[in-house]
Order: sequence, then structure tokens, then C-alpha cells
Amino acid sequence: MKEVMAVIRMHKVAETKRVLVEAGYNSLTAIRAVGRGKMLKDLSVIDKVGEEARDMILESMLKGGRLIPKRLLNIIVPDEEVKKVVEIIISVNKEGHSGDGKIFVLPVNDAVRVRTSERGEEAI
Amino acid sequence: MKEVMAVIRMHKVAETKRVLVEAGYNSLTAIRAVGRGKMLKDLSVIDKVGEEARDMILESMLKGGRLIPKRLLNIIVPDEEVKKVVEIIISVNKEGHSGDGKIFVLPVNDAVRVRTSERGEEAI
Amino acid sequence: MKEVMAVIRMHKVAETKRVLVEAGYNSLTAIRAVGRGKMLKDLSVIDKVGEEARDMILESMLKGGRLIPKRLLNIIVPDEEVKKVVEIIISVNKEGHSGDGKIFVLPVNDAVRVRTSERGEEAI
Repeated sequence: MKEVMAVIRMHKVAETKRVLVEAGYNSLTAIRAVGRGKMLKDLSVIDKVGEEARDMILESMLKGGRLIPKRLLNIIVPDEEVKKVVEIIISVNKEGHSGDGKIFVLPVNDAVRVRTSERGEEAI
Repeated sequence: MKEVMAVIRMHKVAETKRVLVEAGYNSLTAIRAVGRGKMLKDLSVIDKVGEEARDMILESMLKGGRLIPKRLLNIIVPDEEVKKVVEIIISVNKEGHSGDGKIFVLPVNDAVRVRTSERGEEAI
Repeated sequence: MKEVMAVIRMHKVAETKRVLVEAGYNSLTAIRAVGRGKMLKDLSVIDKVGEEARDMILESMLKGGRLIPKRLLNIIVPDEEVKKVVEIIISVNKEGHSGDGKIFVLPVNDAVRVRTSERGEEAI
């Protein structure tokens, strides 16, 4: 069992949710978060904007910059469905821009449905 | 060491917290979330409400429906206490209705108390 | 790959973020939370305040007390950088008081950058 934890844009939550439900993934949790990806990797792009702008951008990053409001989605799935859920999330959220988001996959030992005390994959 | 992550009803947080403290689990984190369980499992129940209502409910789910405000509790415990903490959370939150919540158990490699730099079970 | 999950004081977020960026950790997520550490460990301190105050404090804890607003930072790092990131977070947040915070280290199976579909350590 795995936790698929996706950090996505706020305005992508409704569509991501819709496409997941259509694929049979009705169970999820969403949390408000602020976040930031690894902008330092874009330095080659920054180079093209000229030295002064580059320095301003670097300084802004070093100051800690601003964190962008995001949504953190948690979906618990059986191991063999991780690939499918990750692909669904990518298909909705990939715009080709920095800030499209990240998906992390974490191990989960067990799940319990409170109402029935069911355990394991029965409970997710 | 494990993370017990419980998604519970908002109005159950105070009592859950109280019962956990009484059992010696004073350390926890709570996060606002919105979530939804696996309603698709209830289709057999939906069948009884008639075809028209059934279609409306299904359509509502397929549209992505509404996510319900929840609280996400995180409690870090030694492996051998997971069972007890899960049972405590169930005892407070089990009402027998859809929406009673879910509990997930995740592995934790290490814990550190910032004040003392203590590590492992000493730190939780 | 690991998730470093730190529960820290709200007013420490900006400095923690700044120091992490300076060390090359530009990518993080922050979540509002409420939390509480293991105050029961401080009973020996409470003893010194006299029996009446001690009873009041214990009763307050048993009632479930108040949860303090905190920030939960998530940073995903390669295994070999966990120690460094934990030390950075301690260096900023250690004031020597109860409430300085906790850091948990959790295993992560995989990471995906949505924009490029890059996987693993390339994606963090």
C-alpha cells in the first residue's frame, strides 16, 4: 500500500479530483499548503535575462522568496495502482511550466476504516 | 516507530485528543483538511433508493462531489503501541456511519526533539 | 530518499526557509497545523511549583489542553543529506524551551516532477 502525495496548483484541484473519481479513485484528502519547487535548477534559463535581472532573481531566492499557495492531495492506493494514479495526476497538471507540481510516493503499513474496523486494502 | 495518521470528523477532535491524553499520548499534530471516503462501495445501498436517485448520486460522485472538512491527526508512536492508539481513535470516532474516518499507519525512520537533539523513541 | 517533516514555531518559518535556501534546499512545503509536545515528561519541573499548581497543570493536560499553532515543513532529500537538513533545522529552531519542535524522518519510495515526468532524486 502506498500514499501518493501530490503538491499541485490550487486551480487544478477540482479537475484532478474529477478525473480521479472517473478512474475509480473516490477517496482522497486535500490540505492547504504553501510550497516552492527547486527553482535553482532554472539558472540556465535565468542567464538569458541579463546579469542584473539574474542577480535580482538569485537574491530573491536567497532571501527565501515567497511560498506559493498549493494544494497537497493524499491518495492511498494498492502498490500496483501507484503508476496509474501518478499518470492521472500528471495528465491533469502538466502545463509545461515551473510550478506544475511534484508527486511523492510513500510506503504505508496499514489502513483501517473506522466504521467497520476493516484493515488493509479492504479499508482504502 | 510509526506515524498514525487519522482522518476524523471535525467535532470529534476534542474528545479524541482528551482520550489520547488520558492514555498517555500527549503529543500530536492536527491539520485542517477536506476529504472523502470510498462512497462507491455503497452502491448496493444506493440501489434501494430507486433508479433516478441512484443516477443523481452517481453523477454527483462523477462530478467530483464535495469534499467534507475533516481533521487530520498525526501521532508518532513506538511500533508496539500502534494497536492501542488505533483502538483508542476507533473507540471515540466509530458512529457506524459513512464518514467515520480512516486511519493510516506509516513507517517512521527517526524522530528528533529540537530542544535537546534527543533521537529515536526518546524524542517522541 | 526521505521526507524530513519538521513541526516548528510559526515565527521560525521565515528564518528556517532562508537558511535552508542558503544551504541549497530551495524546495519545500509548509502546512498550518496545531500541535503539542510531550509535556508529561516535564512533571519533575512541575513538582517544584507546589501541589495546587501541579494539580491544575495536570488537570489542564488531562482535559486535552490547548493545541498551539505550528508550521509543519516537508522537505524531501536524498538519504545522505538528511543529517545536514536536520542539523540546519535544529540550528535555527533550538531555543532551549519546551515547544522548540520535533523533526521526523520518513521513507519515500519515489518522487516525480509533474512538468517533466522526471523520477527519483532528479525530481527533488
